[in-house]
Amino acid sequence: MSTEDSSKMADAAADVPVKFVLKPPKGMRDYTPMQMAIREHLFTTIQNIYKRHGAVAIDTPVAELKETLTGKYGEDSKLIFDLADQGGEQLSLRFDLTVPFARYIAMNNIKQIKRFHIARVYRRDQPYMTRGRYREFYQCDFDIAGDHDPMIPDVECLKIITEILSELDMKKFIIKVNHRQLLDGIFAACNVPEEKFKTICSAVDKLDKKPWAEVKEEMTQKGLGNASADKIGVFVQMRGGTELVTKLKSDSSLAKEPNAVQGLDAISLLLQYSEVLGIADKISFDLSLARGLDYYTGLIFEAVLTGEGEDGVGSVSGGGRYDSLVNMFSPKSKVPCVGFSIGIERIFSIMENRAKDVRTVETEVLVASGQKHLLPDRLKVCKLLWEAKIPTEIFYKDNPKLLNQFQYCEKEKIPYMVIVGDEEKANGGVKIRDVASRKEEFAKYEEIVTQIRMLPRPK
Amino acid sequence: MSTEDSSKMADAAADVPVKFVLKPPKGMRDYTPMQMAIREHLFTTIQNIYKRHGAVAIDTPVAELKETLTGKYGEDSKLIFDLADQGGEQLSLRFDLTVPFARYIAMNNIKQIKRFHIARVYRRDQPYMTRGRYREFYQCDFDIAGDHDPMIPDVECLKIITEILSELDMKKFIIKVNHRQLLDGIFAACNVPEEKFKTICSAVDKLDKKPWAEVKEEMTQKGLGNASADKIGVFVQMRGGTELVTKLKSDSSLAKEPNAVQGLDAISLLLQYSEVLGIADKISFDLSLARGLDYYTGLIFEAVLTGEGEDGVGSVSGGGRYDSLVNMFSPKSKVPCVGFSIGIERIFSIMENRAKDVRTVETEVLVASGQKHLLPDRLKVCKLLWEAKIPTEIFYKDNPKLLNQFQYCEKEKIPYMVIVGDEEKANGGVKIRDVASRKEEFAKYEEIVTQIRMLPRPK
Repeated sequence: MSTEDSSKMADAAADVPVKFVLKPPKGMRDYTPMQMAIREHLFTTIQNIYKRHGAVAIDTPVAELKETLTGKYGEDSKLIFDLADQGGEQLSLRFDLTVPFARYIAMNNIKQIKRFHIARVYRRDQPYMTRGRYREFYQCDFDIAGDHDPMIPDVECLKIITEILSELDMKKFIIKVNHRQLLDGIFAACNVPEEKFKTICSAVDKLDKKPWAEVKEEMTQKGLGNASADKIGVFVQMRGGTELVTKLKSDSSLAKEPNAVQGLDAISLLLQYSEVLGIADKISFDLSLARGLDYYTGLIFEAVLTGEGEDGVGSVSGGGRYDSLVNMFSPKSKVPCVGFSIGIERIFSIMENRAKDVRTVETEVLVASGQKHLLPDRLKVCKLLWEAKIPTEIFYKDNPKLLNQFQYCEKEKIPYMVIVGDEEKANGGVKIRDVASRKEEFAKYEEIVTQIRMLPRPK
Repeated sequence: MSTEDSSKMADAAADVPVKFVLKPPKGMRDYTPMQMAIREHLFTTIQNIYKRHGAVAIDTPVAELKETLTGKYGEDSKLIFDLADQGGEQLSLRFDLTVPFARYIAMNNIKQIKRFHIARVYRRDQPYMTRGRYREFYQCDFDIAGDHDPMIPDVECLKIITEILSELDMKKFIIKVNHRQLLDGIFAACNVPEEKFKTICSAVDKLDKKPWAEVKEEMTQKGLGNASADKIGVFVQMRGGTELVTKLKSDSSLAKEPNAVQGLDAISLLLQYSEVLGIADKISFDLSLARGLDYYTGLIFEAVLTGEGEDGVGSVSGGGRYDSLVNMFSPKSKVPCVGFSIGIERIFSIMENRAKDVRTVETEVLVASGQKHLLPDRLKVCKLLWEAKIPTEIFYKDNPKLLNQFQYCEKEKIPYMVIVGDEEKANGGVKIRDVASRKEEFAKYEEIVTQIRMLPRPK
């Protein structure tokens, strides 16, 4: 019997389960300590900016009743993760944070709220992890709900996005803006039948990934006439600023469409406010922007990184106005909303590439010893330091080697050591060592905390 | 036609979906802004203590391959939430953070790590929300993996739990400790056949909820003889400190069982170290403690709040040593581990009951106006303040009423207002108002930020 055979038999005898691949689920990821340190910095930055704009936090479960998500995502609904039917309610994992937010507003009969929500969402998409497309990923949402005057909350959303991307040091970005009513007006002016608006809109949405010729083909396959498609093609390839608004306002086919007129007025007001807030140079009025999701009703926008190389990774934030979503849950209440989501995966990759020498522990002191049988003495010093809230570690050995303890401090950039020794013990104290300079000083037990507190902290 | 009928028809005509109950899934909850403020405080406190002990953070997905969870939870496995089979891998929601941690260690071939992980886990249990039992709930885990000397990492875990509960101002608590090897030794001494150890252990585990008579009945139903059960009954009703260790060490039936001897030696060492760390008064050596989960191999422990009334809500933390779990994933690697989990739901309820006047927004300034057509001027001031990182809000109205703005500041405890008015505008500035004292002072545009920064911040 070969060694292999006998080891297989031993496995079977010990009832060891068949070996399987050790991995997280497809399209999902673990975060290492280094990645967690970067992620924490990222979330703190975003969260602080949201708070700076007066937002409160809410949280909702990772799952929702399946029917809560039904009819909200158009063609993307097929990407929803369902939970198994184990008796009881039919559940699905949340697909975004917007629908749970609308459910929360409707359920609690809220008329006005400005909230942020940083949490994971789930999509059964084909993962493309090197490009930041995961099946489990974080969204950092900010939304303003309530009956407000036109474009004021909307422009604050754009301001917040520019603050976030600037503070995260994303060198170059633009925010594309468009308006669902304007798109509807354009479709009407191009003789698209009303019942085809949504499906044609979802074709336009693909313009950032496909050339116009392919998008046009999708439109004609969806039953749109060649002339209509060509007319749409002219519009959706336009982008610019206030001059484009003026040009479109003078277009006679659009002037007949109330939706187009209202959409253009809204964009015009938005550009005015953007000027006042000093973000006009970041805004690009772009008629090719359509946004995939069904629930948008007004302004739509998307922030795109446009830097060179790895920094030009595409869309990092998207949002818009959805004035009817709460109404879908609660027919009596109309709570207009506008908001956006920052998708952190792409930004995270950039920050990960930039990161060097990120510290993953915050330890300031290692309580060490090179002599034997001093574990209780080391523990006693730890007690002092922990109770003084000084980040402190100890080697979990009865008699650790001093050299290993030195090396650990250097590797983890721990700035100080408290060294316990027989001689110092006899004198009622310890040595405090500066790891970088290797200088050591005696300190009595009762002075350890005060002495350590006076030393400079690591950055 | 009655009004009801016609409204039903209108609904049907508008293709409104059938009304369903707006709620989160059974046993899951939303967090309101007030609850989020409390939760953030709770997590920050716990996380800071974990960091103070030198732990790094990791994160894993909310789902794992189903087979990763198989065979880890004994009788509780029936409570695992599965995802629907939509093609591809079979997934389950994580049941705890320990098994994903062991999978992470095995997958990355880690020999030594001290990590914390604060995240949600999922159990299809009967929810009992007023007692803090949810189907989705947070665990705050701390674990030390690596081949260390006996009881040193173990006692640090107990020290950390006492630090957390003390810092959260949980008035009275004890940490029950026991040892799986000692339990096995006791079972052997009481003539329990080895193949019944686990199932008898799981019966003992119910002693905190059921009287001994019922637990004994479960044992005899599981095929244990009456005499054996009675013998176990004598042991598992014992609790105490070092004196109990001494008493058990002199028990002749236990002295013959190597497991019992080793377990008692371990407990004895743990109590010694607890004394050094000043937590001995919190530790209760309690032979009735068994812990439900299959994977424990050594020390087990559970922290219990013992205060009066709502503060005496039972178990808030549990953990123990699990030296073979990583080995289940990776037959070649032995990475002994010890750790624990703080279940925050009960602590959260206590803190929620205590909380009064928690501020949910951090806004320091409302940029207001009582006069018309000053929206662009208000926006300009907002720009200044946002860019100076001063938390600032604005009413989303073209012409808001000054009274509403005053009332909002009082309600949300916003300390300052910048009031934009025609007269001040003509003089190149604004009024800064202290909301509490109602004092107002003029400030030029270029002085606004400096002036506001000099004012005292709200606590």
